[in-house]
Amino acid sequence: MDKNKIRKLLEEVRKGNKSIKEALTVLENLPFIDLGFAKIDSHRELRMDAPEAIYCTNKTPAQIMRIIEKMKNDSNIIATRVPEKSLKKIKKTYPEAKIYPESNLVFIGKFPKKTIGKVTIITAGTSDIPVARESEITARSMGMEVEVIFDVGVSGIHRVLNIRNKLKKSDIAIVIAGMEGALPSVVAGLVDTPIIAVPTSVGYGASFKGIAPLLTMLNSCAPGISVMNIDNGYSAGFFAAAVIKKIRKKETE
Amino acid sequence: MDKNKIRKLLEEVRKGNKSIKEALTVLENLPFIDLGFAKIDSHRELRMDAPEAIYCTNKTPAQIMRIIEKMKNDSNIIATRVPEKSLKKIKKTYPEAKIYPESNLVFIGKFPKKTIGKVTIITAGTSDIPVARESEITARSMGMEVEVIFDVGVSGIHRVLNIRNKLKKSDIAIVIAGMEGALPSVVAGLVDTPIIAVPTSVGYGASFKGIAPLLTMLNSCAPGISVMNIDNGYSAGFFAAAVIKKIRKKETE
Amino acid sequence: MDKNKIRKLLEEVRKGNKSIKEALTVLENLPFIDLGFAKIDSHRELRMDAPEAIYCTNKTPAQIMRIIEKMKNDSNIIATRVPEKSLKKIKKTYPEAKIYPESNLVFIGKFPKKTIGKVTIITAGTSDIPVARESEITARSMGMEVEVIFDVGVSGIHRVLNIRNKLKKSDIAIVIAGMEGALPSVVAGLVDTPIIAVPTSVGYGASFKGIAPLLTMLNSCAPGISVMNIDNGYSAGFFAAAVIKKIRKKETE
Amino acid sequence: MDKNKIRKLLEEVRKGNKSIKEALTVLENLPFIDLGFAKIDSHRELRMDAPEAIYCTNKTPAQIMRIIEKMKNDSNIIATRVPEKSLKKIKKTYPEAKIYPESNLVFIGKFPKKTIGKVTIITAGTSDIPVARESEITARSMGMEVEVIFDVGVSGIHRVLNIRNKLKKSDIAIVIAGMEGALPSVVAGLVDTPIIAVPTSVGYGASFKGIAPLLTMLNSCAPGISVMNIDNGYSAGFFAAAVIKKIRKKETE
Amino acid sequence: MDKNKIRKLLEEVRKGNKSIKEALTVLENLPFIDLGFAKIDSHRELRMDAPEAIYCTNKTPAQIMRIIEKMKNDSNIIATRVPEKSLKKIKKTYPEAKIYPESNLVFIGKFPKKTIGKVTIITAGTSDIPVARESEITARSMGMEVEVIFDVGVSGIHRVLNIRNKLKKSDIAIVIAGMEGALPSVVAGLVDTPIIAVPTSVGYGASFKGIAPLLTMLNSCAPGISVMNIDNGYSAGFFAAAVIKKIRKKETE
Amino acid sequence: MDKNKIRKLLEEVRKGNKSIKEALTVLENLPFIDLGFAKIDSHRELRMDAPEAIYCTNKTPAQIMRIIEKMKNDSNIIATRVPEKSLKKIKKTYPEAKIYPESNLVFIGKFPKKTIGKVTIITAGTSDIPVARESEITARSMGMEVEVIFDVGVSGIHRVLNIRNKLKKSDIAIVIAGMEGALPSVVAGLVDTPIIAVPTSVGYGASFKGIAPLLTMLNSCAPGISVMNIDNGYSAGFFAAAVIKKIRKKETE
Amino acid sequence: MDKNKIRKLLEEVRKGNKSIKEALTVLENLPFIDLGFAKIDSHRELRMDAPEAIYCTNKTPAQIMRIIEKMKNDSNIIATRVPEKSLKKIKKTYPEAKIYPESNLVFIGKFPKKTIGKVTIITAGTSDIPVARESEITARSMGMEVEVIFDVGVSGIHRVLNIRNKLKKSDIAIVIAGMEGALPSVVAGLVDTPIIAVPTSVGYGASFKGIAPLLTMLNSCAPGISVMNIDNGYSAGFFAAAVIKKIRKKETE
Amino acid sequence: MDKNKIRKLLEEVRKGNKSIKEALTVLENLPFIDLGFAKIDSHRELRMDAPEAIYCTNKTPAQIMRIIEKMKNDSNIIATRVPEKSLKKIKKTYPEAKIYPESNLVFIGKFPKKTIGKVTIITAGTSDIPVARESEITARSMGMEVEVIFDVGVSGIHRVLNIRNKLKKSDIAIVIAGMEGALPSVVAGLVDTPIIAVPTSVGYGASFKGIAPLLTMLNSCAPGISVMNIDNGYSAGFFAAAVIKKIRKKETE
Repeated sequence: MDKNKIRKLLEEVRKGNKSIKEALTVLENLPFIDLGFAKIDSHRELRMDAPEAIYCTNKTPAQIMRIIEKMKNDSNIIATRVPEKSLKKIKKTYPEAKIYPESNLVFIGKFPKKTIGKVTIITAGTSDIPVARESEITARSMGMEVEVIFDVGVSGIHRVLNIRNKLKKSDIAIVIAGMEGALPSVVAGLVDTPIIAVPTSVGYGASFKGIAPLLTMLNSCAPGISVMNIDNGYSAGFFAAAVIKKIRKKETE
Repeated sequence: MDKNKIRKLLEEVRKGNKSIKEALTVLENLPFIDLGFAKIDSHRELRMDAPEAIYCTNKTPAQIMRIIEKMKNDSNIIATRVPEKSLKKIKKTYPEAKIYPESNLVFIGKFPKKTIGKVTIITAGTSDIPVARESEITARSMGMEVEVIFDVGVSGIHRVLNIRNKLKKSDIAIVIAGMEGALPSVVAGLVDTPIIAVPTSVGYGASFKGIAPLLTMLNSCAPGISVMNIDNGYSAGFFAAAVIKKIRKKETE
Repeated sequence: MDKNKIRKLLEEVRKGNKSIKEALTVLENLPFIDLGFAKIDSHRELRMDAPEAIYCTNKTPAQIMRIIEKMKNDSNIIATRVPEKSLKKIKKTYPEAKIYPESNLVFIGKFPKKTIGKVTIITAGTSDIPVARESEITARSMGMEVEVIFDVGVSGIHRVLNIRNKLKKSDIAIVIAGMEGALPSVVAGLVDTPIIAVPTSVGYGASFKGIAPLLTMLNSCAPGISVMNIDNGYSAGFFAAAVIKKIRKKETE
Repeated sequence: MDKNKIRKLLEEVRKGNKSIKEALTVLENLPFIDLGFAKIDSHRELRMDAPEAIYCTNKTPAQIMRIIEKMKNDSNIIATRVPEKSLKKIKKTYPEAKIYPESNLVFIGKFPKKTIGKVTIITAGTSDIPVARESEITARSMGMEVEVIFDVGVSGIHRVLNIRNKLKKSDIAIVIAGMEGALPSVVAGLVDTPIIAVPTSVGYGASFKGIAPLLTMLNSCAPGISVMNIDNGYSAGFFAAAVIKKIRKKETE
Repeated sequence: MDKNKIRKLLEEVRKGNKSIKEALTVLENLPFIDLGFAKIDSHRELRMDAPEAIYCTNKTPAQIMRIIEKMKNDSNIIATRVPEKSLKKIKKTYPEAKIYPESNLVFIGKFPKKTIGKVTIITAGTSDIPVARESEITARSMGMEVEVIFDVGVSGIHRVLNIRNKLKKSDIAIVIAGMEGALPSVVAGLVDTPIIAVPTSVGYGASFKGIAPLLTMLNSCAPGISVMNIDNGYSAGFFAAAVIKKIRKKETE
Repeated sequence: MDKNKIRKLLEEVRKGNKSIKEALTVLENLPFIDLGFAKIDSHRELRMDAPEAIYCTNKTPAQIMRIIEKMKNDSNIIATRVPEKSLKKIKKTYPEAKIYPESNLVFIGKFPKKTIGKVTIITAGTSDIPVARESEITARSMGMEVEVIFDVGVSGIHRVLNIRNKLKKSDIAIVIAGMEGALPSVVAGLVDTPIIAVPTSVGYGASFKGIAPLLTMLNSCAPGISVMNIDNGYSAGFFAAAVIKKIRKKETE
Repeated sequence: MDKNKIRKLLEEVRKGNKSIKEALTVLENLPFIDLGFAKIDSHRELRMDAPEAIYCTNKTPAQIMRIIEKMKNDSNIIATRVPEKSLKKIKKTYPEAKIYPESNLVFIGKFPKKTIGKVTIITAGTSDIPVARESEITARSMGMEVEVIFDVGVSGIHRVLNIRNKLKKSDIAIVIAGMEGALPSVVAGLVDTPIIAVPTSVGYGASFKGIAPLLTMLNSCAPGISVMNIDNGYSAGFFAAAVIKKIRKKETE
Repeated sequence: MDKNKIRKLLEEVRKGNKSIKEALTVLENLPFIDLGFAKIDSHRELRMDAPEAIYCTNKTPAQIMRIIEKMKNDSNIIATRVPEKSLKKIKKTYPEAKIYPESNLVFIGKFPKKTIGKVTIITAGTSDIPVARESEITARSMGMEVEVIFDVGVSGIHRVLNIRNKLKKSDIAIVIAGMEGALPSVVAGLVDTPIIAVPTSVGYGASFKGIAPLLTMLNSCAPGISVMNIDNGYSAGFFAAAVIKKIRKKETE
C-alpha cells in the first residue's frame, strides 16, 4: 500500500503529471507511517500473535469499553489491572471474555492452538498467583505452552528440587516471588534454563511493596536472570514469548 | 557415574555384601553431588561454553592468581572488575590473556569459532563502553556473534532509526544506557527483537549512580524489555547467550 | 495608587499638614505593600491574566467557597485538586464554572480572546490526561493558544515523529509522562522547541508514584528540558505562559 | 543537499535513467538523515549558536582531544566536567581556549557579539559559583547577555530585595542554590521573571548531595519555577537561551 | 517520702532493729523510684504544667477513655491524633473538654492564667493549621501566651515582612510549613528570634509526605533553626514552652 | 516412615523382587522428601512444637479455611494477619480457636504444658501490643513460658530499671518498639539477656512506617541485639523459642 | 541613621528643596537596608556576640583568607569545615587563631568573659567529639558557659544517670550521637532540661552516614527534643546560645 | 566492693559515727555504680569472657593505643575496623597481638580453652571473609568452638546441602552474605539451627552497599532468622555467644 503510494507518485513523475518540486514536497513530508516504518510498529503485536494490551489503571469504564470495541476485530485483547466496575461491564458486554478476577485480568480472543515453545512459571507463594496469571495468559496468547506451579518457596528447598526436571525441559522459566525474593537465585543454581524474575509486592514491613525482592533479583549472584518491574506479570509473559518467537523464527527463516 | 555408584551399592545389597542398614545410611547421607545433581551444577557453565567467571572486587592479587591457576585448564576464564594491580600480574603471568583495561576485564581462553546466534549491543553514550565490553566478551565466549554499536543516544533519534535493520536481524539486543536510560524504551518501539536493558552508573546528580536509568528501564511502557543490575554487562551477555543456546539446543534435540 | 498614597503624604508634609515626625512614622511602618513592592506580588497573577489559583487539598468546602467568593470579582479563578464534595458545591453555586471532573479542576472566569503565544501539550498515555488538563486550562487562562495531543507514547516512535511539525511551530511544549517518562528526551531530540517536562504518578511498582519519570526527566541526556513536580500540570501551564508573556512583553516595550 | 539528493533521484526517474523499482528501493531505505530529518537534529545546536557540548566524565584525554579536533572547525565547543589532566592538554593544544578551572569547564570559540536576550544568574552561596559559570558560558555562547550575581542567600533577604530590579529586567532568571535551596521560591515571590532553578550538591548531612534543594525546588509553593538536575548549570543556560531564541525567532518570522 | 523511707531504714539500723545485712539487701534492690529518681520523671510533665499527653493512634476508644479517666484528676490532659469515634465519646463523657476536630485534638483542663513567655506560631499555608493548633494548645497549657498567624507563605515575601515585629517580640517562634518548607529559612533571616521549624505532610508528588520540607529545614543556611518531626505540632509547642520555662525558672532561682 | 520406605525398597532388591534397574529409577527420582531430607523440612515446625503458620494477607477466606482444614489434625495452627472476614469464618467454624482480634491473630491447638524456657516480651508503648501478642502466642505454642510487659518506654527510664530482674531471669528477651525504637539499646545496656528487637510501624512522619526504629535497632551501639522485620512478632517468638530449644536439646543429648 | 536619612528627605521636601516626584523616587527605591530592616540582618550575628561563621567547604584558601581578612576587625570569626591546606594558611597568618584540627575548626577572637547561660554538651561516643567541639566553641563565643562531657553512651545507662545533676543545672543541653542515636531520648526521660539533638555520621552500614540517628531523634517518644542537621555542631551551639540570649534579654528589657 | 562500701556506711551509722542525715546524702547521691548496678554493666563483657571491644573508626592511633593500654590488664581486647596506621602501631607495641589485616581486626588476649558451645559460620562468597573473621574471633574469645566455611553460595545449592550436617550439629549458625543475600533463607529451609544473618556490603549497583542483602534477610520467608547490621560480624559473634552462654548458664544454675 505505502509502497504503492510511492510507486504511483514516481509514475506520475515519470509521466510528467507531477513536477519534481511537487513530488519533492510530498516525499519530504511523507508521514513516516507511509514508508512502512510505522505500520510495522503499530502492527507489531498483532503479527506476533500478542494480544493488544490495555493497561486499565486510571481509565474510566467508558474509555476501556471504547478501546476494546475498536480493537476487538483486529486482535486478541488482554486487559490488565481492570477495575472492578469495568470487569463487570466487560463481562456483560462480552460474555465470551475470559475473566480472571483475582488478577483483575481480562482476555478476549483465542489462544493459538499450535504452540511453539514451552514456558514454566513458578511462584514462591500462594499470594503471587495473580501476577503469575498475567504471565500465563499473555504467554499462552502468544503461542506458548505454559505450565504454572504455585508455592515453591525457598524455605522448603526440596519443593524446588522436585520440579527441576520440568524447569529443565522448558525454553524459559518465569520465577515470581515477593517477600525476600530469593527463589530465582536458587532456581538459577539448579537448572540451565534462563530465568525471568518478577518481584511482587507481597510482603510487609521492610519488603517495601516489592523493593526487597526487586533488589534481591537484580543482585543475584547467579547469572542467567533478568528482571521485570514489580508485579509486572504481563511483561514477563510477553518477554518470554517474544524471545522464543524471535529465535525460533530466525531458525526457520 | 553417580548412577554407577548407586547401582554398585544396590548390587552389594543384593549380593548380601552390604546390610540394608548400611545401605540405608549411605543413601540417607548420600552427598547430593553423587546423585548427579550437583555435578550438573558445578559444570553447568563449562558445558555451556561459558567462561568461568571470577568477580574480583575485594579479592587480593594472590587469591585471584590462585583461582585462575586452578581453573585455567578446565575452562575459559573471564575475570571482571579486576583491580589494577591484579591486571598487571595477570598480564605478566598469562601473556596470552586478552585484557580490556577500560573495563578492568580479562579473558583467558579461546572464543568458539562456530557461532550459534547473533547479539547486537548498543550503548547510549561513549562512557557506557566498558559495560558493553563485558557483555561482548561474555557473549562471544559463549559462542555468539556479537556486534557492538556505540553512542546511539535517544537525543538524536535518527541514530537509532539508522540501525533498525541490524537490530532486527539479531536474535537479541543488549541496550546499555546511563543518565536517564530511555534508549531501551525507544528501541523496543522500533523492532521486535527482545531487549536486555543494562542501566549504567554514568551520569551525575539525580541519576544516583544508576538508579535513574534502572527505574526507567523497569518501568518501560514498551513490553519486551528485561533488566539487569546497574553496570552488570557480564550478566547481560551471559543471559543473552544462555537464552539463545537453550532455545537453539532444544530446537535440535 | 500606592504611589499616590506616598505622594499625598509628601504633599501633606510640604503643606505642613503633617509633621515630619508623623510622616516618618508612617513611612517607617509603611506596609511594604504600600511601597508598590507587595502589590506587585499580590496582584502579580492578576496582571498577568493568570487566574488566582486555589490549591484545595485539605481545605474544607466552607473554606474553598469563602476563598472563591472573596476572589471572584477581581480575578479569574482556577481551583486545583478540588475534593468531590467541594466540586459539587461549586457547581451548584457557580453554574457558569467550568468543571473538569477527571482532573478535579475548576475554572471560573473567561479565557482571554486574544492569544499571544502557542503551547502544545502532549501526553505519553491516556492516564496522563488529567494532568494535561491542568496545564491546558492554566495556559489558556493566561492568554495562550493551546493544543493538546494525547497518547504519544515512546514505544511507538512514529506517533512522535508524526507531530513534529506541530511541536516545531509552538513557542514551548509541555510533555507529560508517567511510567518511565522517556517521552521528553525523545521529543527534545526531534525539535528545537523548549520542553517543560511533567512526570506523573501513573504507573506501578518501581515507578514509585512518579519518582521514576521524575528522575528520567531530570537526567535527560538532551538539553532544553526543564522539569516540574510530579503531577503538577498547573505549574507547567503557568511557567509556559509566564515565559512567553515575559519575553513577548519585553519585545514590545 | 538532501533535498538535492532526492531531487536528483526524481530527475533520474523522469529521464528514465532510473527505474521506478530502483527509485522505490532507494526511497524506502533512505536513511532518515537524508530526508532532512536527522540533519536538523545533528545540526540543531550549531544553528542555534549553541556550542557543541562534550560531557567529559569517564572520557580519556585522548577521546576528548579527538572529539574537540573533529568538531572544532564546525562549531563553538563547550566541554563540561573536564578532568584535570584533560584540562591541561586542552590548554596546551588550544591556547585560545577559555578555561574555567573551578568549574572544570572549557569554551573554545567566540561569543556572539549581538545578544538577543537577557539572562540573570544568581547563586545562593559562593560555593555555587562553579555551577553558575556553566550556565553563564553556555547562555553567552548562545547569544545571551548574562549577568551573574553571587551569594544572594535567603538568610539575608534584603540581599534578594536589592536585586529585584535587575531580575525584573531580565527575560529569564537562573537561580542556583545548594543546602536547603529556598532561594528560587523567594525570588519567585518577588518578580514576574520566570525562574530556572538549579539545585547544587553544596551542603552536607541531610542535604544528601543535592536531594534536599532539588526537592525544595520541585515543591515550591510559588509557580513559575522549573527545575534542572543537580549541578546541571549547562542545561540551565541552554534552556534559558533556547526559550528566548525560540520565542524571539517566532516573533520575527 | 522516698527520702523518708531511707531515713527510716537508717534509723532502724542505728537502733539495731535491722541488721546491716538486711539493710544492705534493701538498699541494693531499692527500686530506683524510691530514690526519688523516678518520681521526678513520672511527675515531670505535671510539675511543668504540661498536660499529660496521650498519643491516640492505634488506641481503642475504650483504652483512651480509661487513660483519661485515670489521669484526669491529677493533670490537664492533651490527647493528640484522636480517632473520630473516640472524639465523639470524649465529647459526650467530658462536655467540658475542648475539642479541635480539624486537628483531632482534645484538651481537658484549664490553661494557666498567668503566662510566663510569648510564643508566636506562623504557618505557610491554610492546610498547616491543624498542626499549628497542636502547638498552640500545648504551649498555652504550659503557661505560654500564644499568637497564631496563618498563611504567611514565602511566595509573597511581604506577608512575612509584615509580621517581623510580632516575631521579634516573641521569646521563640514556631514556623510550620509543608510543600518546600522554605519559610523558616526566610524568617530566620529577618529576626533574631530562635525558630522551631515543623515540616508538615501538606503537598504532593515530590514532597513525599513531608520529607521535602523536613530536609529543607534541616539544611537551612540560616542558623538558629531547630527541627521537629513531620506534623509534630505537639512537640514543637512542648519544646518552646519547656525552653522558656527552664531558662525563666533558672533566672528566678 | 521414609526410612522405612527406602528400607523396604532395599529389602525388595535383596529378595530379588525388584531389579536393580527398577530400584535405581526409584532412588534417582525419589522425591527428596523421601530421603529424609525434605521431611525434616516439612515436619520441622511440627517436631519443634511450633504451630504451622499461615500468613493470611492476600489469601481469600476460602483458601484460608481450606489450609486450616487440611493442617488441623497434624499440627497446632497459628494464622497471622487474618483479614476481618476470615476471622469471623474461623470463629464460627472452630469455636475452640483462640482469637486475638487486635493482632488479627488466630491460634488453634493447645499450648504445651511443660515449658522449657523463659521469654520476656516488653513493648515500648501500648500501640505495640498487637505485635507482642504474635510473639507471645508463637513462643508459648513452642513450649516457652512467656511474660509480657507493656509500655516500658525509654522516656521514663525508671520503668525499664524496674523490670531489670525479670529480664535477667529470662533466657531471652523480645523488645518491641516503634517511633524511634531506642528501647532495645537501653535494655541491652542493663542486662546480659540477649535481645531480639522488633521494630513496629507505630509512629508517624519520619518514622516512615517502621524504618526509623528498624535502623535504630540495626545500629545499636550495644552488642547482643538481633533484629526482625518491621511488625514481625511471629518470627521474633519463633526465633526465641527455636534458639532455646536448639541449645537445651543439645544439652540433653 | 536610616531614620535620619528619611527625616532629612522629608525636611528637604518640606523646605521645597526636593520635589515630591524626586522624593517619591527615592522612597520607592529605598534599599530596604536603609529602612533599618536589612542592617538588623547583616549585623544580627555581631550584635549577638556570635562570631561571623564561614562555611569553608568548596572554598579556596584564597577565598577563605580574603573573607577572614575583611571580617576580622568587625567580629569574632568562626570558620567551620576548613580544609587542611587552609588550616595551615590561617595558622601561619593569624598565630593568635585557635585551631581545632580534629574538627577542622578555627576561632579567631575572644570569648566573652561574662557568661549569661549554661550549656552542657554530651556525646555518645569518642568519635562524636569533633562535632561537639563546633557546638562548644560557637556557644562559648556567644557568651555561654559550656561543659562538654564525652562518651556517655546509652549502652551503659549508669553513665547517663551519673551526670543527671549537671544536666539539670544547665539552661539547655546539646546531645550528640551517631550510630543509633538513642541518647537524646534517654536523657529527655531523665531531666527537664530541653535538648538539642545532633545526629552524627559516625557509624557504618545501616546508619547511612547519619540517617539512622537523625530519624531516631526526630521520632523520639520523649518531647522536649529538637533536632539539627547531621554533624551540624555549629548550629546546635548557635541555637542554644540564641535561645538563652533571646529569653534572658527579654527578661531584662 | 560496692557492697562493702555500703556495708561500711551502715556500720558507721549503727556505731553513730555518721549521722542519719549524712548517710542519707551519701545514699541519695550514691553513684549508681556503687549500688552494684553500674558495675554489672561496666564489667558485663568481662564476666562473660567477652573481650572489651574497641570500635576504631575515627579514632587516632594515640587514642587507640591509650585505650588498649588502660584495658589490657583487665580483659581480653578486640579492636575492630582498626586503621592501617594503628594496626602497625599495635603490632609493634604488642607483638603477642593477633592481627587479621584483611578484617582490620586485632585480638589481644587468650581464647578460653574450655568451650561451651558450637557456632558454625558460613559465607556466601570469598569477599565476605573479613566479616566472618570478626564473628569468629569474637565468638571464640567468648568461649565458643567455631567452624568457618567459606564460599557456600546459593547459586550452587549442593554446596549448601553438603554442609547440612555440620550446621545441624551447631548450637547456632552465622550466615554471612552480600549481593542478594539469599543464603540465610535457603539454610533456614534446610536445618533447624537458628540463624544469625549478617548482610555485607559486597556487591555493586543495586546492592546499594548492603541494603539489598539486608532487606532480603529481614524479609526472609523462613522463620528462625535474626538480622545484624551490614558488615557487623562482631555483633553476630557476640550475640551467638551471648545466647548460648545465657541459656547454658541458666541450665546449670
